[in-house]
Amino acid sequence: MRRFVKRIVLGVQYDGNGWQGWQKQPSGNTVQDALEKALRQFCNIEVNTVCAGRTDAGVHGVEQVVHFDTPLIRTPYSWVNGVNAFLPDTVAVRWARELELVAPDGDQFHARFGARARTYHYVLLNDKIRSPLLIGRAGWVFRPLDVEKMRAGADYLLGEHDFSAFRAAECQAKNPVKHMYSIQIRQQAEIIVITLRASAFLHHMVRNIVGSLIFVGTGKRSPEWMAELLAGRDRSVAAPTFMPDGLYLAKIEYDEKWALPQSPSAGIPGFLPLL
Amino acid sequence: MRRFVKRIVLGVQYDGNGWQGWQKQPSGNTVQDALEKALRQFCNIEVNTVCAGRTDAGVHGVEQVVHFDTPLIRTPYSWVNGVNAFLPDTVAVRWARELELVAPDGDQFHARFGARARTYHYVLLNDKIRSPLLIGRAGWVFRPLDVEKMRAGADYLLGEHDFSAFRAAECQAKNPVKHMYSIQIRQQAEIIVITLRASAFLHHMVRNIVGSLIFVGTGKRSPEWMAELLAGRDRSVAAPTFMPDGLYLAKIEYDEKWALPQSPSAGIPGFLPLL
Repeated sequence: MRRFVKRIVLGVQYDGNGWQGWQKQPSGNTVQDALEKALRQFCNIEVNTVCAGRTDAGVHGVEQVVHFDTPLIRTPYSWVNGVNAFLPDTVAVRWARELELVAPDGDQFHARFGARARTYHYVLLNDKIRSPLLIGRAGWVFRPLDVEKMRAGADYLLGEHDFSAFRAAECQAKNPVKHMYSIQIRQQAEIIVITLRASAFLHHMVRNIVGSLIFVGTGKRSPEWMAELLAGRDRSVAAPTFMPDGLYLAKIEYDEKWALPQSPSAGIPGFLPLL
Repeated sequence: MRRFVKRIVLGVQYDGNGWQGWQKQPSGNTVQDALEKALRQFCNIEVNTVCAGRTDAGVHGVEQVVHFDTPLIRTPYSWVNGVNAFLPDTVAVRWARELELVAPDGDQFHARFGARARTYHYVLLNDKIRSPLLIGRAGWVFRPLDVEKMRAGADYLLGEHDFSAFRAAECQAKNPVKHMYSIQIRQQAEIIVITLRASAFLHHMVRNIVGSLIFVGTGKRSPEWMAELLAGRDRSVAAPTFMPDGLYLAKIEYDEKWALPQSPSAGIPGFLPLL
């Protein structure tokens, strides 16, 4: 085994449809499996990747961030185009950055532990009739949603809170306290985009929040119910976990000193003008 | 066989991926096959549909218009929701309108022959790296496109012309002369949308025009080349037929007297804000 000489950071985009989520599985049918297989083919050695945030089956990545160590020296252009040649259409490396294993200041980049904030988008189709062009791309709510009420409900979640009310039973996080920096809800024609930015997210947290905000938007619950849910810390009281179709891991933020070539926006191609 | 009593008009949306185009085939794997199968299941009798414009394999329908005659009396709500229950996720009836077989003025609605104008969108991703989230949704051009030059080239196609230069060999149209009412080219970030509105289109005409406009956009050809192509009427000189992925049949226009409940915009869900 050759000695690692570089830590490589990749920006990875994927369509979550058809994949059993991010994390490696014996089935081999996950995005991480596909990426590591392509890296193995490109590098001719085993590569173990660490990602910023594991996504569930059916959840998309606009810009997942991944790191791995390697004994190889390649240009960023070569990492992007070389690895993409071995990836299926539904996964692509969008950019690459070569870092020293340990930075001059003694710090080491880490895709997961170095992340300061994460942004997710949830795209909703709010229309009486389903849309074949948004299957697997947007969640569908056929009852009219009151976006103002949803905004009022979302405001209760801002700041540092114990988010246990929106946490999946199988969540492995040590601490359910996270800082919600912002929740924006934008509407244009029949499309609604909910954008959440937080220090970190618990398992199913976005889908559980979106499910509950939909209860508020349809009038089934009041905006104040979001505050009650949060305070109660009881997952069994909140709305069911909403479908994964409209969920996009959009952006991971790191210290600027790493100079990652991240996209300026956290846009979803095609939905960009709304974001 | 019961006597037909009504002519029903449907607005149909579909994701072209996975279908062998619109028109019925022995394979049974076309959008028309799927629609007629669902209508047969809903009506318990054979139904033969006529569409406004047949689309190729991989081409999407935002709002295809279809008519058929029926002995049944159903509400528009029932036609929409009843038929949708039998359709796969990738096809949906978006609206229905019940007309008399023959209108009081003696005229008869016809989805194909009554169409006064058709609008297609072609969505392009103009970026160095492919995007997994736009596979099957947008054409991909990695060389930078000069949209101003493309607009200048497109302007030569406006008005009534013989469009033989952009016509597929297998095209069955009797007359290659069509009226191009407008071509708009809009750009936002890495997305370019080309919108063409004409009296009618020849087989492969949009994809052949888009392929040639891309030659102009990358600088391989001048804007004036579009005028030369048009005047030459020689399909072998124009650019290759561009991929179907980004092509959307968006809107069919009819006489207002039919009062079809068409969408106000000819938008692609998700791309709506750009249109």
